[in-house]
Amino acid sequence: MKFKQPVPLTEIASLINAKLVGNNAASATGINEIHVVEEGDLAFVDHPKYYEKCIHSLASFIIINKETDFPQGKALLIVDEPFEAYLKIVNEFMPFNPSMQMQAVSAKVGAGSVVMPNVYLGNNVIVGKNCIIYPNVTILDNCTIGDDVMIQSGTVIGSDAFYYNKKADRDIHYKKMTSCGTVIIENGVEIGANCTIDRGVTGETRIGAGTKMDNLVQIGHDTIVGKNCLFASQVGIAGATKIEDEVILWGQVGVSKTLTIGKGAIVNAQSGVPASLGGGKVYFGSPAIDAKAKMKEFVWINRIPEIWEKLKK
Amino acid sequence: MKFKQPVPLTEIASLINAKLVGNNAASATGINEIHVVEEGDLAFVDHPKYYEKCIHSLASFIIINKETDFPQGKALLIVDEPFEAYLKIVNEFMPFNPSMQMQAVSAKVGAGSVVMPNVYLGNNVIVGKNCIIYPNVTILDNCTIGDDVMIQSGTVIGSDAFYYNKKADRDIHYKKMTSCGTVIIENGVEIGANCTIDRGVTGETRIGAGTKMDNLVQIGHDTIVGKNCLFASQVGIAGATKIEDEVILWGQVGVSKTLTIGKGAIVNAQSGVPASLGGGKVYFGSPAIDAKAKMKEFVWINRIPEIWEKLKK
Amino acid sequence: MKFKQPVPLTEIASLINAKLVGNNAASATGINEIHVVEEGDLAFVDHPKYYEKCIHSLASFIIINKETDFPQGKALLIVDEPFEAYLKIVNEFMPFNPSMQMQAVSAKVGAGSVVMPNVYLGNNVIVGKNCIIYPNVTILDNCTIGDDVMIQSGTVIGSDAFYYNKKADRDIHYKKMTSCGTVIIENGVEIGANCTIDRGVTGETRIGAGTKMDNLVQIGHDTIVGKNCLFASQVGIAGATKIEDEVILWGQVGVSKTLTIGKGAIVNAQSGVPASLGGGKVYFGSPAIDAKAKMKEFVWINRIPEIWEKLKK
Repeated sequence: MKFKQPVPLTEIASLINAKLVGNNAASATGINEIHVVEEGDLAFVDHPKYYEKCIHSLASFIIINKETDFPQGKALLIVDEPFEAYLKIVNEFMPFNPSMQMQAVSAKVGAGSVVMPNVYLGNNVIVGKNCIIYPNVTILDNCTIGDDVMIQSGTVIGSDAFYYNKKADRDIHYKKMTSCGTVIIENGVEIGANCTIDRGVTGETRIGAGTKMDNLVQIGHDTIVGKNCLFASQVGIAGATKIEDEVILWGQVGVSKTLTIGKGAIVNAQSGVPASLGGGKVYFGSPAIDAKAKMKEFVWINRIPEIWEKLKK
Repeated sequence: MKFKQPVPLTEIASLINAKLVGNNAASATGINEIHVVEEGDLAFVDHPKYYEKCIHSLASFIIINKETDFPQGKALLIVDEPFEAYLKIVNEFMPFNPSMQMQAVSAKVGAGSVVMPNVYLGNNVIVGKNCIIYPNVTILDNCTIGDDVMIQSGTVIGSDAFYYNKKADRDIHYKKMTSCGTVIIENGVEIGANCTIDRGVTGETRIGAGTKMDNLVQIGHDTIVGKNCLFASQVGIAGATKIEDEVILWGQVGVSKTLTIGKGAIVNAQSGVPASLGGGKVYFGSPAIDAKAKMKEFVWINRIPEIWEKLKK
Repeated sequence: MKFKQPVPLTEIASLINAKLVGNNAASATGINEIHVVEEGDLAFVDHPKYYEKCIHSLASFIIINKETDFPQGKALLIVDEPFEAYLKIVNEFMPFNPSMQMQAVSAKVGAGSVVMPNVYLGNNVIVGKNCIIYPNVTILDNCTIGDDVMIQSGTVIGSDAFYYNKKADRDIHYKKMTSCGTVIIENGVEIGANCTIDRGVTGETRIGAGTKMDNLVQIGHDTIVGKNCLFASQVGIAGATKIEDEVILWGQVGVSKTLTIGKGAIVNAQSGVPASLGGGKVYFGSPAIDAKAKMKEFVWINRIPEIWEKLKK
């Protein structure tokens, strides 16, 4: 998430009640998670395991719960609860301010596009040219839809990430990490009915040009889908995963988080993908392996009784 | 389902044209299925296999298709078709009378709650304090939403149970058992987009405090979910199942009906749960077993060719 | 898809700029895919592999990209791009002309039916008698709903087929084949919440009388479902498949395209059906096989370590 304009670190420090160490004359351009942070941004970290990774990420300014060394030119903002500081910053610079009209005043719809009845377009939603948005679609704040996009009925674009901070000593164990990211749907994408595409937590979820998806498909936060992919019905992809161009996922395939499926891979129906898959191959099974190897497995399983008989002799 | 006020048994008997035997001066407080019935309620039974269970349940008054012995103080209402009698009673005391406004006059929304456009709130719906109900959500009659609850777009709360009486000699084999139960969503629950939570048939479906669910999750009728559970996207739970506190179900897990998953159990993605699982363990597979045992199975399957080679020698 | 009235072939030829060979005095009654085409209709074919099948189908008039022999009385319309010709014809005779009202002027609702708030009924939608259509349902153009039908909230009837023409040399590889077919829901059908039922590409998708489906079920284009079937939650059926009468599909079952499941078959939860299944049996697994054989497989897999031990000795 970027601020509308750079914000002096001293202002941030004051907001979150932080001890500011380092480059305290600087301004921050935004706040982001480590994996999508850019130079000039804030990032935050509360677990020693990730201190090094965060301090040496592209983040210029680190909200952290311990004073530690850091590269010259950067700054630390030291607080007890970096996660709470994150929530405070997002709440200050991107407050929840939902449009209560079906089409927000700030929403823009391009020439030649048809927005059918009962469609909700939130604040700053942009719909490109020659799109068809079917009835009962919901497109939430700040999402961007390209040209020649079709979105069928009941689909939700820009739902919040399923992303929580857990502390078992709280009465309610899970506290939501506010989603301040967005969804980008590129040109020529077509999305079926009753799909759900979550927004990035701080960054973006992106569906590449020409990708088509069937009904009841789930795309998690921060997932980047390439161009000209095909996702059949009831496919589910978790968060922060990368699907390269021309990948085909058949019906009810499930894909875990933070992995990569290589270009042109084909994953057969009902497979489960727990780890990255190379491009250009066909996969099957849960967990998914090479499809031919999986089919051989079935043959071998069928031969166990024969093996048993032979062994008895 | 409870009647608004106790109804004399003689009135019930007359409505359903029943022979009333036993405590005929009593009044009934409601009508419920065996597993949720309370003292003072009616229950009904039409299969000899369940006669004993029903007569000795907490039900005070039994609608039944055969005269039989029963404990003192109870009563029988004897009819040819107990299922039809149930439908008649529900239709009489809780007639289908849908609100035709987007927000029923009797619906109540607590302070600090935001109900966004295009949300349907049925008769007697209660939404607590500081909730966010996103666009295109449907909350049907008599459902109760606690405080600090978030419900994302397209989700349906209080859809009817998938619950039928079958007679193959009817032209239409399946006759719906009218749902007169409800859904209770406790405080701090967050529900993703395009989920479906069915109401109880006569009792309640309940989502415990602090539980979070991702998009496209299905919760069946009369299912009781504990506190601080996590359900990832596309999880499906059938009817009358009990999920204890702090259970985690990962993506696309399916859970069968009328079973229990113990506290703190974790079920890995795409697993299928056909029978109860103990708490505090990790499970995988369809059918789900101990996750480590399942992974060992894969190792053994891979060794079958080796076994075959060894055997040939 | 049928034209409102027969269209002279010469007019079609002129529209798509085709060379007309054969019975050029005739008129066409409609345009359809090979598997649903009827006498008097146009069909189209662009791959030599399917030339013979198309020319000898019931189609009277063939849009084709090569001049070839054909039976007397038929005609060829020769063009470079038959797929583009199809799109042009559909666009001309069934132009996309969405109703921008919640209930199209041409939509008809039968006596005793309740259409709750926020329901979209498109052009020429027919809803029969004594139906209940819950809030936030979408029924798109030309779909027909029988009598005594219940459709729960969020369900979409008549979404477009997931059906594309692929050319990898285009920037956008997949070009949608415009859906001009329809959905027919017969009497006594009940459909859960947030389901999706795609329309036929040129023909119909049909749900047989008395069939009941739970929430989040997907039915693909041109699929024909028989009478008195039960589909549990999150079942997905791909396109052009035939489900005969009284079939039961339990939760999360996936069924592939263009196959048949025989009368009375039962497919256990989470199974995947890649090929036709005979009637009257119980199936399990992905791929689904006889349920008892599948359970035996699990027993044999568990015995591999024992086999290994025996072999070592």
